[in-house]
Amino acid sequence: MKHFHRLATVLGILLVLVLTIFTAAQEEKDPLPSWNAGPRKKGILDFVRLTTDKSSPKVVPADERIATFDLDGTLWVEQPMYTQVIFMIDRVKELAPKHPEWKTAEPFKTILSGDKKAMDKLVFKDYETVVNATLAGMTVESFSDIMKDWFAKARHPRWNRPYTELIYQPMLEVIQLLRARGFKTYIVTGSGQDFVRAFAQKVFGIPPEQVIGSALKTRYQYDKKGKGILLRAPLLLLDDNFSDKPEDIYLFIGRRPYAAFGNSTGDRQMLEYTHAGGGPRLMMLVLHDDARREYAYGPAQGLPASKVGTFTQNLYDEAVNQGWLVISMKNDWKRMFAFEK
Amino acid sequence: MKHFHRLATVLGILLVLVLTIFTAAQEEKDPLPSWNAGPRKKGILDFVRLTTDKSSPKVVPADERIATFDLDGTLWVEQPMYTQVIFMIDRVKELAPKHPEWKTAEPFKTILSGDKKAMDKLVFKDYETVVNATLAGMTVESFSDIMKDWFAKARHPRWNRPYTELIYQPMLEVIQLLRARGFKTYIVTGSGQDFVRAFAQKVFGIPPEQVIGSALKTRYQYDKKGKGILLRAPLLLLDDNFSDKPEDIYLFIGRRPYAAFGNSTGDRQMLEYTHAGGGPRLMMLVLHDDARREYAYGPAQGLPASKVGTFTQNLYDEAVNQGWLVISMKNDWKRMFAFEK
Repeated sequence: MKHFHRLATVLGILLVLVLTIFTAAQEEKDPLPSWNAGPRKKGILDFVRLTTDKSSPKVVPADERIATFDLDGTLWVEQPMYTQVIFMIDRVKELAPKHPEWKTAEPFKTILSGDKKAMDKLVFKDYETVVNATLAGMTVESFSDIMKDWFAKARHPRWNRPYTELIYQPMLEVIQLLRARGFKTYIVTGSGQDFVRAFAQKVFGIPPEQVIGSALKTRYQYDKKGKGILLRAPLLLLDDNFSDKPEDIYLFIGRRPYAAFGNSTGDRQMLEYTHAGGGPRLMMLVLHDDARREYAYGPAQGLPASKVGTFTQNLYDEAVNQGWLVISMKNDWKRMFAFEK
Repeated sequence: MKHFHRLATVLGILLVLVLTIFTAAQEEKDPLPSWNAGPRKKGILDFVRLTTDKSSPKVVPADERIATFDLDGTLWVEQPMYTQVIFMIDRVKELAPKHPEWKTAEPFKTILSGDKKAMDKLVFKDYETVVNATLAGMTVESFSDIMKDWFAKARHPRWNRPYTELIYQPMLEVIQLLRARGFKTYIVTGSGQDFVRAFAQKVFGIPPEQVIGSALKTRYQYDKKGKGILLRAPLLLLDDNFSDKPEDIYLFIGRRPYAAFGNSTGDRQMLEYTHAGGGPRLMMLVLHDDARREYAYGPAQGLPASKVGTFTQNLYDEAVNQGWLVISMKNDWKRMFAFEK
């Protein structure tokens, strides 16, 4: 027993030494190859060094390393509409033949009309009505099946690719870098929690329990065989936008993030809450200013006020005043999507 | 570069070999030393082997290994009252001088009377009133400070020890064994989420984000300096008992547990939900049948119906019918608390 222990210790020490040299030699490798050099890339790398280098005077204990990411517009494309809204519209169209009453009942009538201007006027409450009518009253497993089918078939109108390919490669690199340095990475999204959980593991390496989002209440009931099941109730339990983001971060995680990433007023409070923790914190906003490679709808461009979150001039000013980093997709990102060459 | 890599690989392989032999030699070491031999101890060890041995035909993928534990009466003593109720009573007594109106207003009047029979008649709703009056309207940090102070001073009336020492050593060993075999261990409790988060890391090695419990809504607001803060609102958002346990497990984790541990009807649905997943699952109930070393209040002994959860005859029958394992504290546990010799 004892000599095994000793031999293992000696070999372990040797391994650590060799790996340390190897790692040091590797450090020249760029962990953010899709980022152009500049203050944003430097800001991320400096933050990582400051919070995770053992020699750093501001090193953050491993179990407190929490980073939160908004999803829509921050990690993947949110134009021409939120992906989940497209999913809901497809769901309404699919079920419409069984619901002749939708021809006259709102918001179904507008959705089925295909009139984009009219649809831009729909608000969160309208989509709540849609969810309650088309995606509630079923087990969580049935919902999961519906989503999987949709994701397998649906294609983005501009790129003709699955929505899960329209994630920003530079942000994925940030997630991976933070995780490699001991951060627990969370998605905190206004989109549906189980909608996002369906792909977060595969696409971002983020497990279901690290996805916080809007959620229906579920109800535990018994099926005909007496087996316990969870039914999706037509009742919104969490609406994870604006002030609800820090509230739900506290509810789910119980700790304040050290880094937070967003792109709209829906993320403002999450960034403020992160910032208010003091010490080394990283707050970043993605500015959509690249109409050629993606879309442009920053403060200068404007968006319908009905959208849940927009990058307003007011948010831009707060970011500048607070020293948050505003990412220019056009200038800071060398490569937008993994499928680009 | 290349030869470092090769040397590291060779050393790594040697280390793994030596550790494998070392681990094999260690296997004789009992991971559950506070358990007496018998069907319950065997049930746990068999489950662990079945779900985590690489050679097992029923091995569970590492990221799906979820185990959930009730707290009160399952991991620590819940007599003469739930620890959090004792905390709330102390809080009422502390604030009473500033609230002369409590001398006539219920449930404060009963609580201040010290009449234990009358207090046994208080129900969940009464304590909700107490929480809203005495532990809401403050920042989450202020609440945390109040709790820390209380835990530092409070002593259990029978053992005259801090409440955090009154945890069951055999259950701690189960938590540690499961975690060593790749399980994520969660506490799922009717007690307050942030109350339990205050000590779960230190006492059970369970981080805040793996504690799911009853919770007030918080509200993100700005203090006088414009800094974002989270205030505890007098509004119960989650009441994590009975059917809410599987519902909140789905909400927080998004996966079904492979093992669940409880001691009362408040845990019934969590155990049913776990069981309904099929395949290798472990469902266990702690039966309090040891009046000498702890308390006896199983089906035979009865408890006031007002208590949130009790181990009823009906639950006992369900456990037997379903093949869940009922732990006899008297017979299955060699040692109850770590402070025992």
